[in-house]
Amino acid sequence: MITGQHYIGGHWCGQPEASNTSFNPAQNAALPWCFAEAGEAELHSLTEQATAAFALYRYVTAAARAGFLDAIATELEQRQAEIVSTMVQETALAPARAQSELGRTCNQLRLFATELRAPANDCSLPALPERQPLPRPALRLGKVPLGPVLVFAASNFPLAFSVAGGDTASALAAGCPVIVKAHNAHPATSELAAQAIASAADKTAMPAGVFSLVHARQHAFSEALLRHPAIKAVAFTGSEQLGMHFQRLIWQRPQPIPFFGELGSQNPLFVTPDYLAQHSEHFATQLAQSVLNGCGQFCTRPALVFVPKGAAVLQSQLKLHFGQAQAGAMLTAKIAKHYRDGCQALRQCAAVALLAEGQGEESACYTRPRLFATTANAFLQHGILQQEIFGPATVLIEYADTTQLQMLATTLQGQLTATLYATEQELAKMQALLQELEVHCGRLIYAQMPTGVEVCAAMQHGGPFPAATDSRYTAVGSRAVDRFLRPLCYQNFPNLNGDKA
Amino acid sequence: MITGQHYIGGHWCGQPEASNTSFNPAQNAALPWCFAEAGEAELHSLTEQATAAFALYRYVTAAARAGFLDAIATELEQRQAEIVSTMVQETALAPARAQSELGRTCNQLRLFATELRAPANDCSLPALPERQPLPRPALRLGKVPLGPVLVFAASNFPLAFSVAGGDTASALAAGCPVIVKAHNAHPATSELAAQAIASAADKTAMPAGVFSLVHARQHAFSEALLRHPAIKAVAFTGSEQLGMHFQRLIWQRPQPIPFFGELGSQNPLFVTPDYLAQHSEHFATQLAQSVLNGCGQFCTRPALVFVPKGAAVLQSQLKLHFGQAQAGAMLTAKIAKHYRDGCQALRQCAAVALLAEGQGEESACYTRPRLFATTANAFLQHGILQQEIFGPATVLIEYADTTQLQMLATTLQGQLTATLYATEQELAKMQALLQELEVHCGRLIYAQMPTGVEVCAAMQHGGPFPAATDSRYTAVGSRAVDRFLRPLCYQNFPNLNGDKA
Repeated sequence: MITGQHYIGGHWCGQPEASNTSFNPAQNAALPWCFAEAGEAELHSLTEQATAAFALYRYVTAAARAGFLDAIATELEQRQAEIVSTMVQETALAPARAQSELGRTCNQLRLFATELRAPANDCSLPALPERQPLPRPALRLGKVPLGPVLVFAASNFPLAFSVAGGDTASALAAGCPVIVKAHNAHPATSELAAQAIASAADKTAMPAGVFSLVHARQHAFSEALLRHPAIKAVAFTGSEQLGMHFQRLIWQRPQPIPFFGELGSQNPLFVTPDYLAQHSEHFATQLAQSVLNGCGQFCTRPALVFVPKGAAVLQSQLKLHFGQAQAGAMLTAKIAKHYRDGCQALRQCAAVALLAEGQGEESACYTRPRLFATTANAFLQHGILQQEIFGPATVLIEYADTTQLQMLATTLQGQLTATLYATEQELAKMQALLQELEVHCGRLIYAQMPTGVEVCAAMQHGGPFPAATDSRYTAVGSRAVDRFLRPLCYQNFPNLNGDKA
Repeated sequence: MITGQHYIGGHWCGQPEASNTSFNPAQNAALPWCFAEAGEAELHSLTEQATAAFALYRYVTAAARAGFLDAIATELEQRQAEIVSTMVQETALAPARAQSELGRTCNQLRLFATELRAPANDCSLPALPERQPLPRPALRLGKVPLGPVLVFAASNFPLAFSVAGGDTASALAAGCPVIVKAHNAHPATSELAAQAIASAADKTAMPAGVFSLVHARQHAFSEALLRHPAIKAVAFTGSEQLGMHFQRLIWQRPQPIPFFGELGSQNPLFVTPDYLAQHSEHFATQLAQSVLNGCGQFCTRPALVFVPKGAAVLQSQLKLHFGQAQAGAMLTAKIAKHYRDGCQALRQCAAVALLAEGQGEESACYTRPRLFATTANAFLQHGILQQEIFGPATVLIEYADTTQLQMLATTLQGQLTATLYATEQELAKMQALLQELEVHCGRLIYAQMPTGVEVCAAMQHGGPFPAATDSRYTAVGSRAVDRFLRPLCYQNFPNLNGDKA
């Protein structure tokens, strides 16, 4: 079922290379699938096909695009057993998680389809030929797609932020052809999702080249692709280091194009003594779950937790949770190594204490959860505490009082989320803290864990840099489509005054 | 009345320098006003005051911000005699034009005020605690201001795109403090507008530092300002060369910020033989007016006109208009020199013919209008024909048939506008051309001149690069405020379910 090929311009192509295999992180072993590696020829055909497809696809009606997105969801569901089993092998994520992520992916596709079927809310103004001192022409503000979009699939959401994920769905909804660079950590899962899209494109008679999938381990290929003039926007989810490298390459293009990078977040969480006095156990359980779930591989997991000084009960509850947790396999050996290196660096910082760590062997892709603690002063002094460690670790930062809490908030970098756990009585008195947190995040949460991102029209998944490269756009929810559209004003066309002339 | 000082943090400051005077382009002579030059101290106080103001201004209610904008309009109107007379001296623009631009400036301010008073259309979703498999939290998507905005005033709209112009009005509407770098071509007009804003800020009790004006002839000062971490967005209207220089400096900042550059456009215009057969004289009059008005110093004047081969009647009508036109003073000697150099370069191109030029002496700020003609093949071969010449010149490009017209359209750079003059009968048959033009412009017009930009909710003033650095935003109309806002999602706050709990 896995060909190991690229999908370009409506055809599967390329020769899989024996050395280029998929990998099972749980078993630390190669999987039996191998994949092609893209080069000059693929660069040419991908961009040519996407350009040709754009000339047609941008005039495919919204209803037909909605049908295409719905068909992708149906095709994914028809392949769900194979997709889930393949994803579990390639990612070490639990089958239930894979299953629910597939459901979310289909829901996302159908959400964009539903939005496409809603009446367009273009702004239209009829002509006012008698207006003084000058007549007003008839005007309508519509939206047009930017052109071919390059999507870099994310490692940590092999379905919902990968081949048929939110970036692809929103770009296709906008009327933009999509080229997906498959993530090397789950190429077989990627191919299965691409097969679903290819089949949906065939059944709904979409132009060849509306969607392509390309495999490339070499960064040079990705770099050439994102510099190519045919590409009109780029979506990326990954590390700040790689994301900013891509961003700088894009800035070297002769013509600016938008780059939507979601680069990392520590999702600070603040909890008050009054809240803990009433809900310490509940809070500890929720926090541990939010940090440990899926090996901590969520961009919204809380990695900085500001707790009152001397919250001994909370600390012992959390120590229990983290101490009992088992080591788990992360998505890739590289991610696991980064996590272990990050934890090691924290342990070498004298001001940081390791309160607890989980059970089991730590090697290859396997890592142990960890709970750290430090003081407010240490947080202010050691920049390392504001560097993201992607994985199942969190740091408790002890604060003395509300004044110090407020001051700590001012030092935060840009974040996807910020969360306050306080009693409802306290909330009214903590407006200054909430106002400060607004400056630093894209989503402000009261008394809920930040993991679990609702896919809807009211979501903002993004935030001030480095959470995202452009805080004005969301990567999740129906407004994600705005990233790939621009306004176009139509003036004085006869049909604009049709009803009102 | 003109102090020549900066206005920073609610105070007039700085020492005017005798050598730093305002200039009268019509008389080629210095004006009696001289101005301060900003340095390190001003850089520090400007950014510190804007940051301090942001902490307050972002919580000023929408109604109070609307009151501030309305008050600015009132203050401008109270000073209109002095503003108009000063602007005419500094710019050589006609008094009627200065008067109408003042009116537009006030209308813009009041448009943003009206929008601020309209109910916020935040997207709100109530909690669904019983939803399976997971409850939905209550969510509200609001918008928050980005922070202090740096505005570079435009030379060609000394009021409507300068100190109290559209960029300032939209940033203030968004809740962002504004620092305006005064344009050196109209510093006294700038000060008068700043006096109006200062007075309005006092009367409506806005925070000191909500608005600042700074004079600086040295690019180094502008460069330091746009690299300063306090600045969170930049708006610029000017040449592609200077705009992209600023853009590259902004890309060197450690943290990305949005740069809204409106950099230039040729505003191609297409006319069919059938249309000319019926309306040649009307068309010639309209075109000449659109190109010659205000010495051609509009970013939307049509500088490329695609005409049918052998349209001899049109050519002789246009020759008459351009030949009778008088030389006029442009805004600055530098702009006039650029215009003359651009015309000279065209004349040296063997494939380009000078059909007509206006009357009168050409020296210092004075330039003569010019009408050029060339062939479709020459247009394709000579890149110089796609370089903007800012001023009262246009080029007729003769095309053979619709097929060639379609092909010519594919070669266009990004434009603010594109216009088609055709009969209504032809329109249905020319959809392919209109579709091609959509790719290249921000406003598509039927049978009207592109000059005269309606300030309203349906306007798009922007377009693919190099017309603008970010085609997703408009510099004119009520949506200009979106440039300075980002979405913020509020989750699970008790008041979110207030009505629906």
